[in-house]
Amino acid sequence: MEGSLKVCASVRAAVMAAPGKMVTRGFPVPEVTDDSALVRMLGSAICGTDKHMYSGQTKLGLPGAVVTFPVIPGHENLGVIERIGSNASRVMSTDGSPLNAGERVVISADIVCGHCYYCRNVYGYPWCLNHRSYGDVISCENPPHLFGGWAEMMYILPGTFMSRVPSQLSDEEAVLAEQLAVAYGAFGRAYQGPNSKEGYAPADSVVVQGIGPLGICNAFMAKMMGAGKIIAVDKSEYRLKLARELCVNETISLNDYPTVEGRTARVMELTDGLGSDMVIECTGDPAILSEGLDILRLGGTYLVEGAFVEEAPTQISASRQIVAKNARIVGAAGMPYQAYGRVLKMVENNRGSIQFAKAVTHQFGIESAEEALKKSIAPDSMKVVVTPKK
Amino acid sequence: MEGSLKVCASVRAAVMAAPGKMVTRGFPVPEVTDDSALVRMLGSAICGTDKHMYSGQTKLGLPGAVVTFPVIPGHENLGVIERIGSNASRVMSTDGSPLNAGERVVISADIVCGHCYYCRNVYGYPWCLNHRSYGDVISCENPPHLFGGWAEMMYILPGTFMSRVPSQLSDEEAVLAEQLAVAYGAFGRAYQGPNSKEGYAPADSVVVQGIGPLGICNAFMAKMMGAGKIIAVDKSEYRLKLARELCVNETISLNDYPTVEGRTARVMELTDGLGSDMVIECTGDPAILSEGLDILRLGGTYLVEGAFVEEAPTQISASRQIVAKNARIVGAAGMPYQAYGRVLKMVENNRGSIQFAKAVTHQFGIESAEEALKKSIAPDSMKVVVTPKK
Amino acid sequence: MEGSLKVCASVRAAVMAAPGKMVTRGFPVPEVTDDSALVRMLGSAICGTDKHMYSGQTKLGLPGAVVTFPVIPGHENLGVIERIGSNASRVMSTDGSPLNAGERVVISADIVCGHCYYCRNVYGYPWCLNHRSYGDVISCENPPHLFGGWAEMMYILPGTFMSRVPSQLSDEEAVLAEQLAVAYGAFGRAYQGPNSKEGYAPADSVVVQGIGPLGICNAFMAKMMGAGKIIAVDKSEYRLKLARELCVNETISLNDYPTVEGRTARVMELTDGLGSDMVIECTGDPAILSEGLDILRLGGTYLVEGAFVEEAPTQISASRQIVAKNARIVGAAGMPYQAYGRVLKMVENNRGSIQFAKAVTHQFGIESAEEALKKSIAPDSMKVVVTPKK
Amino acid sequence: MEGSLKVCASVRAAVMAAPGKMVTRGFPVPEVTDDSALVRMLGSAICGTDKHMYSGQTKLGLPGAVVTFPVIPGHENLGVIERIGSNASRVMSTDGSPLNAGERVVISADIVCGHCYYCRNVYGYPWCLNHRSYGDVISCENPPHLFGGWAEMMYILPGTFMSRVPSQLSDEEAVLAEQLAVAYGAFGRAYQGPNSKEGYAPADSVVVQGIGPLGICNAFMAKMMGAGKIIAVDKSEYRLKLARELCVNETISLNDYPTVEGRTARVMELTDGLGSDMVIECTGDPAILSEGLDILRLGGTYLVEGAFVEEAPTQISASRQIVAKNARIVGAAGMPYQAYGRVLKMVENNRGSIQFAKAVTHQFGIESAEEALKKSIAPDSMKVVVTPKK
Repeated sequence: MEGSLKVCASVRAAVMAAPGKMVTRGFPVPEVTDDSALVRMLGSAICGTDKHMYSGQTKLGLPGAVVTFPVIPGHENLGVIERIGSNASRVMSTDGSPLNAGERVVISADIVCGHCYYCRNVYGYPWCLNHRSYGDVISCENPPHLFGGWAEMMYILPGTFMSRVPSQLSDEEAVLAEQLAVAYGAFGRAYQGPNSKEGYAPADSVVVQGIGPLGICNAFMAKMMGAGKIIAVDKSEYRLKLARELCVNETISLNDYPTVEGRTARVMELTDGLGSDMVIECTGDPAILSEGLDILRLGGTYLVEGAFVEEAPTQISASRQIVAKNARIVGAAGMPYQAYGRVLKMVENNRGSIQFAKAVTHQFGIESAEEALKKSIAPDSMKVVVTPKK
Repeated sequence: MEGSLKVCASVRAAVMAAPGKMVTRGFPVPEVTDDSALVRMLGSAICGTDKHMYSGQTKLGLPGAVVTFPVIPGHENLGVIERIGSNASRVMSTDGSPLNAGERVVISADIVCGHCYYCRNVYGYPWCLNHRSYGDVISCENPPHLFGGWAEMMYILPGTFMSRVPSQLSDEEAVLAEQLAVAYGAFGRAYQGPNSKEGYAPADSVVVQGIGPLGICNAFMAKMMGAGKIIAVDKSEYRLKLARELCVNETISLNDYPTVEGRTARVMELTDGLGSDMVIECTGDPAILSEGLDILRLGGTYLVEGAFVEEAPTQISASRQIVAKNARIVGAAGMPYQAYGRVLKMVENNRGSIQFAKAVTHQFGIESAEEALKKSIAPDSMKVVVTPKK
Repeated sequence: MEGSLKVCASVRAAVMAAPGKMVTRGFPVPEVTDDSALVRMLGSAICGTDKHMYSGQTKLGLPGAVVTFPVIPGHENLGVIERIGSNASRVMSTDGSPLNAGERVVISADIVCGHCYYCRNVYGYPWCLNHRSYGDVISCENPPHLFGGWAEMMYILPGTFMSRVPSQLSDEEAVLAEQLAVAYGAFGRAYQGPNSKEGYAPADSVVVQGIGPLGICNAFMAKMMGAGKIIAVDKSEYRLKLARELCVNETISLNDYPTVEGRTARVMELTDGLGSDMVIECTGDPAILSEGLDILRLGGTYLVEGAFVEEAPTQISASRQIVAKNARIVGAAGMPYQAYGRVLKMVENNRGSIQFAKAVTHQFGIESAEEALKKSIAPDSMKVVVTPKK
Repeated sequence: MEGSLKVCASVRAAVMAAPGKMVTRGFPVPEVTDDSALVRMLGSAICGTDKHMYSGQTKLGLPGAVVTFPVIPGHENLGVIERIGSNASRVMSTDGSPLNAGERVVISADIVCGHCYYCRNVYGYPWCLNHRSYGDVISCENPPHLFGGWAEMMYILPGTFMSRVPSQLSDEEAVLAEQLAVAYGAFGRAYQGPNSKEGYAPADSVVVQGIGPLGICNAFMAKMMGAGKIIAVDKSEYRLKLARELCVNETISLNDYPTVEGRTARVMELTDGLGSDMVIECTGDPAILSEGLDILRLGGTYLVEGAFVEEAPTQISASRQIVAKNARIVGAAGMPYQAYGRVLKMVENNRGSIQFAKAVTHQFGIESAEEALKKSIAPDSMKVVVTPKK
């Protein structure tokens, strides 16, 4: 272990110096305290937030969260623990057994204080009033610098959780944990009374609006949680084709159904004229909500996960689309930290029938981070990963 | 019983002949079949829908529901069973014990088919695909005419439910059943995991936007279901004062806080700077939703009940107000038919400490229905009842 | 259709004349009324209840339910509608679209009144106070006789529900609907707050005690609803082997672990020393509850489904196994009628990865019903079906 | 403040030296570290656990918990913060605002590690694998000695939570917080789908078995959470009379109904022949479970809270009382730490109509602790408090 550290006396990282500007920089190897850890990265998946930062949208979801350039992007992180402090070993674990150097882990995106109103009262959620996150709000100018995953190593601050990865899982499967955890948390919040069809229930029809990386992870979750018919809507034929291969039953291409009316009619056809039991918004486009509510059945559930960055106002009809429809709309940003470990168990138990790893379509080295970003925005990619292995 | 029928060989009813036009008419006493019933009315409370019909808004909440003039208004109905068919006696009951002539009952507003997708699959809810309702969509030109509560008698169609009223309750308390049932159903849909503060939980702070009749019934329900601090927002000082007397802890008058910013700041002050755990929209104004989402805490629940008739588009921010807030929005129109009987039990058990009857501020005779309507719209009224007793 | 009826002017049926005594008899083809239907049977699966009746235990689960000999057994029924009355066509459907002759359907085991307290108040459940069921409590001496599924035809009484079978499903898959529906209803009742691990949550470990037909259907449901590790306990190596092939991750054989202590220790090993998140009792042995509670983690959920017939008293420790363990125990007999249609959708969507049909290990003709019963009791069978196709 | 400390340079405490043996002892005033606190006691309520310790039952609820004599009893504690460390000020708070010297607080009974499996995964519950509690498992021989509430002062260890008391509440109201929190947590776990009557729903009938201190707190909670009819069963006429005055609708005295059959019949009479929607066991007698299940309606919920110490085996019928009844049994020991603050809010909002303080029937000084214990066991007491104010 010690030897490996010497080799990278300088840690390479991809740095977003400003919107639209990526550079590669070296940083010193940090010291680890009793309460912190150091992880040697295996991969960091690109998320919509990274694309938004690159294009200059710097206000993030939680109130007050703003990107602080220069940053090392990357908050969907997988690596191997290089060093871990004795207290961190106990308290960063989510399953009660201490974490040790050499273990492969996924790292929660959120850093929480543990004692504010939300940390104390709302189960597991990172709605912390002192919330920070990796890959965006902490500048890499601040020592120990390594606060993002597009790097050879990452520094793990107190208030972070890590979940060990079952040995059978490939790195490609494991790196999906963060977005699967978003879906797990959202489905968990949608559940209510399955027998009485309050909230999501097994056998429900599910429409996923936008079958990019977040969309496909929600489709995986729907599949693993007993959904009936899973329908994906997108404009990318590449993504729709891959979704059908992986777990989706029906696809609606914007090329075939260019109008809201056409898509709505198609969903009605596929759902016995009732509308979908659940709709999941994964497009990032706030204007899509009206269409989502239109394709929902009476009393259906609408999970809104993608519209994370303000791009346009949302106009809906409160009377027709919410009250008369008895709709249930659940916004979902972030995830309970416990969800990481749980989704890894679910992947372990379903990898025989679902080819999760195929959702990672492209991987790039640290020096190619800008190329990776561009590919992640292109319609002919699904999940793109930045990894020091390349 | 027979004698009483002869007295009203012609049944008086208040008829809305067209928007803005009320007349009193006489109708023949209907025959009762095996599957139907006849109720001698004690009172019928005026609802927002009645006001909307009067002002010419004829499209109702459920898809396709349109007012068919001339109609006898009135769907919040209390009366005594005059005659009931032998089959109706069994199947119109919600608690399993047959209904008999002479029993005081509240009558469900909805008439359902019992076998469509929604009747078969979604617990108790009147989202029936063949849905009809009293007081609006069935013209009084159609025999047996008496399809609304502003009359001496009402004809009860197959597919209606009736709940007997506990003997201790006054008519004024009992006539609130329909709107209390709306609140019961909505709170029931909001419940999820009380310990983890998913959905409504006892001790929660609750803001009621609009403390008219629907608002006060939701405040009653919040009080009976263990809410912490109940806050009412309105522009009517009359209603705010009455609400404070009845069950509300804090009031915010639009006269004192004329701006959204001011009201939002006041709610924050009253909720430790977090926002309210639950907000209930009872204003009927679709534009209010943005304010409702602003005053909600992260992960809070927003019950939208009042915006039943389209008056204006609703503009919100999907990213800031739904996703980043992890908001839960639940639209609630109608109520499970079982809720009528349950709320009557709750009133029975809480009437020692809550003065429900005071919410009925005005009562008018059938001939004075137009005056009743106007009073119900005025800011110096709460619940207004039309009754043949006057 | 008409022609086919003439062929079986006498309908063959397997009749249990008394405990331990099976005979084959002929019955006349019944007339169908407006409210009833006639189904040509494809198969009827043998359930624990059938075995109990055969061995002389005639008191069934619901209060007052007693077997009335002679009976045609069979309440897990699959067939094709031969004739259906016009009213029955609408009201026997669970998805809102009318049922027609020629459609393949599964038939709910329960006949409910629709208007008693339970029918009116508790969602979908057949806890009807006027409850009857096929295959046990209605003697075949009463015309029209055909009240059980081990026959060429079955008469469908008013108050029964039928769910059409998706065309891709084999008869072997479809005939599992009733027991999958038990599991669906039980899991639905166990769900509560998945994120906070109140009740069943995806990724949970699940121990199935007794991996016979009911056990395997619960394991299927766990698998389809995202369980983590599924562990089966049984004494039949045949059943354990089949369970591993179909969906179970780990098996504990009573041959290898003959003592409660040994099995408990093994479950602890497989669940990080915590005990299982959920345990499902499918043994039919009331004495097993103590072991089930011992292998549960703190706050875990215990579904008790199998102990349907009284065989022995149950002794547990209320303080150690319920209170101190914060256990949640949910008894589950019967299922919501809507569950039949939903599980068929789930089978349709998961048959690519789960070989449901292999759970039907043996099929026998009507004349061989006694042989079928004996095979169903033998340890080298899973689901045994009686079918007129043989 | 400093002055007051000098006065009690020796802190008086009631010590249980061994079962049946109470003495008064003096201890030094402890130093407070950054992570701990010192509370000047206002009162400590006597609980069933204290009575059990006194009578020699030393095995407590959670696995492995054993009373370590000599102990200062008292885990339902109310006091004023005398000193608090700077870190403790932040992390011992449950509502996110720091705690300061001079604030009146209730103190959680449990001391949790914060990072074991249960602390990390199961919301708020003190099922901590490293669990300790005040008043029983920590000997007062260990410095700083003051680990129980029957004393002038109490030492607050890291891992404890404290909730500030609203200023309007009397000490008698506030000292009920711990047992109300047990009820809050239990009701929270019982909630599920109120509209579909899965778990507890408002308007439900509730039978409380044993209307002692825990029973009355559960009855208060039922009343505050919208129960329909509340029925108490006990043998003490004193307690039944007080319960009727405070919040209970009907009482069943064991003097009038000495047999299980008689009591069951009486509950049936009071619940329309159906049985109670919810039953709450607060007797401490494990043998009572069979009666509790008998008086439950089909699909009802049984909260088992009182049978905390093993006194007798529990014998039930799994088939008749669990499976056929579709019963839901929820064991509840301890409470989420957040519940303390929430119940105090509920008391604040309901003290106008419920006379909580009257449940505290007797108060004794520290030197009279043994007398207090004996009174708490006597049938003519409800809640008994030990307080240095006397």
